[in-house]
Amino acid sequence: MSRHLARLALVSSIAIASLASPLATGVADATAIVEAEVALGRRLVAVGYMRRFDAAHRAVKAVADSGDIGAPVMFKGVHRNAEADYGILPATVVVNSAGHDLDSARWMTGEEVTSARVFALRTRDDLHPATRDLLLINLVLTHGRHAVSEMDVNAGYGYEVSAELVCQSGTAHTGQADRVLVRGHANRGVPVAADWLDPFQEAYVAEVHDWIGSIAGGGPFTGASAWDGLETALTAAACIESIATGGEVRVVRPPKPALYLG
Amino acid sequence: MSRHLARLALVSSIAIASLASPLATGVADATAIVEAEVALGRRLVAVGYMRRFDAAHRAVKAVADSGDIGAPVMFKGVHRNAEADYGILPATVVVNSAGHDLDSARWMTGEEVTSARVFALRTRDDLHPATRDLLLINLVLTHGRHAVSEMDVNAGYGYEVSAELVCQSGTAHTGQADRVLVRGHANRGVPVAADWLDPFQEAYVAEVHDWIGSIAGGGPFTGASAWDGLETALTAAACIESIATGGEVRVVRPPKPALYLG
Amino acid sequence: MSRHLARLALVSSIAIASLASPLATGVADATAIVEAEVALGRRLVAVGYMRRFDAAHRAVKAVADSGDIGAPVMFKGVHRNAEADYGILPATVVVNSAGHDLDSARWMTGEEVTSARVFALRTRDDLHPATRDLLLINLVLTHGRHAVSEMDVNAGYGYEVSAELVCQSGTAHTGQADRVLVRGHANRGVPVAADWLDPFQEAYVAEVHDWIGSIAGGGPFTGASAWDGLETALTAAACIESIATGGEVRVVRPPKPALYLG
Amino acid sequence: MSRHLARLALVSSIAIASLASPLATGVADATAIVEAEVALGRRLVAVGYMRRFDAAHRAVKAVADSGDIGAPVMFKGVHRNAEADYGILPATVVVNSAGHDLDSARWMTGEEVTSARVFALRTRDDLHPATRDLLLINLVLTHGRHAVSEMDVNAGYGYEVSAELVCQSGTAHTGQADRVLVRGHANRGVPVAADWLDPFQEAYVAEVHDWIGSIAGGGPFTGASAWDGLETALTAAACIESIATGGEVRVVRPPKPALYLG
Repeated sequence: MSRHLARLALVSSIAIASLASPLATGVADATAIVEAEVALGRRLVAVGYMRRFDAAHRAVKAVADSGDIGAPVMFKGVHRNAEADYGILPATVVVNSAGHDLDSARWMTGEEVTSARVFALRTRDDLHPATRDLLLINLVLTHGRHAVSEMDVNAGYGYEVSAELVCQSGTAHTGQADRVLVRGHANRGVPVAADWLDPFQEAYVAEVHDWIGSIAGGGPFTGASAWDGLETALTAAACIESIATGGEVRVVRPPKPALYLG
Repeated sequence: MSRHLARLALVSSIAIASLASPLATGVADATAIVEAEVALGRRLVAVGYMRRFDAAHRAVKAVADSGDIGAPVMFKGVHRNAEADYGILPATVVVNSAGHDLDSARWMTGEEVTSARVFALRTRDDLHPATRDLLLINLVLTHGRHAVSEMDVNAGYGYEVSAELVCQSGTAHTGQADRVLVRGHANRGVPVAADWLDPFQEAYVAEVHDWIGSIAGGGPFTGASAWDGLETALTAAACIESIATGGEVRVVRPPKPALYLG
Repeated sequence: MSRHLARLALVSSIAIASLASPLATGVADATAIVEAEVALGRRLVAVGYMRRFDAAHRAVKAVADSGDIGAPVMFKGVHRNAEADYGILPATVVVNSAGHDLDSARWMTGEEVTSARVFALRTRDDLHPATRDLLLINLVLTHGRHAVSEMDVNAGYGYEVSAELVCQSGTAHTGQADRVLVRGHANRGVPVAADWLDPFQEAYVAEVHDWIGSIAGGGPFTGASAWDGLETALTAAACIESIATGGEVRVVRPPKPALYLG
Repeated sequence: MSRHLARLALVSSIAIASLASPLATGVADATAIVEAEVALGRRLVAVGYMRRFDAAHRAVKAVADSGDIGAPVMFKGVHRNAEADYGILPATVVVNSAGHDLDSARWMTGEEVTSARVFALRTRDDLHPATRDLLLINLVLTHGRHAVSEMDVNAGYGYEVSAELVCQSGTAHTGQADRVLVRGHANRGVPVAADWLDPFQEAYVAEVHDWIGSIAGGGPFTGASAWDGLETALTAAACIESIATGGEVRVVRPPKPALYLG
């Protein structure tokens, strides 16, 4: 959402949700939104990281939180899209697609990002020379933890998202909501979805329900806050800089306002 | 639902759904309901075989209907409940639990049942002597097809339902909507649901939506009809007789009224 | 193997193995071989049911034998071949292919077959009218146990064998020795073997090793004995009769000689 | 193997294999061995990277080599051991365990390593302060390709190795040779091996067969050569330096002798 729209909403004390493209805001806009919320003294903005409402992601987090296999030490994500536009630039990949993975890493581990090192690849010679369509995003987290995410926007075969939490004595991995296993043509396999609509339809519905409930007075929105949006924007900026420079980039954040604690 | 409730509804031309225990009616009641609907000239009763609205079952049927792996020749079902009441009788198992499998066999293959042969087992010596808690239901279908269903009400480890259509050049099997794969304690596995609430929650919702839509004028209910309920009741009766006699029992049905054709 | 060859071997006290087509002998020949061994007072014949040496089948049996999920109450087998000769007769399917499943049912449950009821299907209209290429074999076992096996010689998509032991509080199912999982072409799947050579290569090697070891004095052959061969022959004959008559056929056996006890 | 043993063998023109701990040699020793072979003009040393003989790894490579899903662009490895000695140092983890992964990355992609960046974690507070038991190894490969390997020596739940080649329009992942799927105790899962003996037993046998065949005159050993050993030693040294410095370390190698081309 734009800073202006968010500001307008905040000034009017109207709850607002940015469910479709949560990372359309950059660091400056995200900061302005946080500052406006702090000035208002209320959290009104909901940021649309729908994986926080996905049953599989929640089940993985629940296993880690249960302590049954120890605390999480590493997040491993996979995010593949079937095909990207010719000439897609790495910054676009980070902002439009990888933002979800950056949020997952924070949310699922409960840690913050201290630095980013992204290895960026061009998968085919016939792509635009500036395109980097396969990113391996390394995030150093607080408390000596780590996150690594494969972001592949030209995966070719379809759309897939997975997340694994490597814990101290085991791992928890998102299950795959396969509907049908087909044996045929010398193969035993399952169809892969073409895009994100189908795999995350229920998560979107759950997110909207939660948001409507929060407006209707049922309590705070339990998804990502404006602060979470700022965290992702800061990490995304570090990722983009890492791709540009080929180096490791520290993530520096302002002090967390009391509004977003607890 | 009781015959009386159904009759009342039909007399009043009120649509009525029996979504919770679709097989509570026996052959006599199911016949009476069909006759009442035929007399009225309208289909008002919805029978709650929610698997017809389950995404996995529908995906399996869709693969078979597509012809990609040929036409279905055999239905194979598995239906396991964690634990049954002590002293449960085979007729109760058939009526309360296996009814869903009998409906699946018909719906997924598009065939009718011509005879039933049920092998009924008692899985433990400490069960009531009359209990048969594990049934292997064989149904001879029209056109030389077959259905076989394992119905196990004392499976112990949890609740699971699956269906496979063996087709002419492949098979389609319901996928498992696993939410999390856990590696821990020398095991790589997924938690199994304790009962049917969780696995079929969405199917129930879809069924109710469809039914409400049909009442609201959006067209006919696309789930099981009163005639389907009668078919299941007839097959269930044959299964119960087969368990009692140890033999194969033919299923004989009245002519299908025009109301239920097409 | 022929009765004459077996007799010759026995007369000469030479150990002999029938590893390739274990069921080539019928009841008469199998009986003669058993009688010859009993007369000789030694077990010299090894019958080639190589699944007894397959790591997956052994692991399933080991889980059941461990008691961790209770005792086995039902055996469920699947045996699919890609394609059969045009005009294949049901008796050929039973003798050449299903013999392995009949042996598995006995070996894995530790029970004997008391009767057989086979439902026999013709999967396509363009097959020979007498062909039955898809069998569902129901075997009533001792102690109120049961076995059911799908034998499909025109499965189309490839070769697959699986076995599941339904136990009192869980089940054990053969794992699938998949070598590679391929994501591609909108599918996530594994290649299916074309025939039995690849899946059972190691089992054959293990079986031959065991047999050679037994000849070399390392102790008795641990695979199927002549008596096991006779049991399979008797069950196969019952299956063939069941297909012909459409009824249930009892399996009657001679008293088990002391040579085969323990 | 020690440089001295290798030298002795080479001087004597005796083929020698280092199958158990392929990375016991450091860069200096590996260089000396290569130089000795070059002086001799023959390849006599076999290095024991047994995964090159593992059916699953070979199947993955075969899919990539087939071109069906495009060329490989990224290697992703997972290597987990149940438990490491208290106080294990990162260099030991790299040399004793991760060497296999470094070799897999080169062998499976056909690329060379140009730099390494290893993120090293200590998974529990009660471990020795200098221990780093969970490594995420990033290798920049030639032609803009990448490899990433998780090396976890305190995985707790057991031993697992997997490899995935992300290709241009799909991925190929090692299958899991599961022997038994157990449903029980509210879980559907497979046992995980305790160590590498069981999963790689057949690969070791195949490797030894290949090596014996090469000595017996059946052609060159098709596994890793002394040059491959040197490549791994160079990469391992870079990994160890990266852990120590927290930076990215280039891998520099001498020119490849003609003896190892082709």
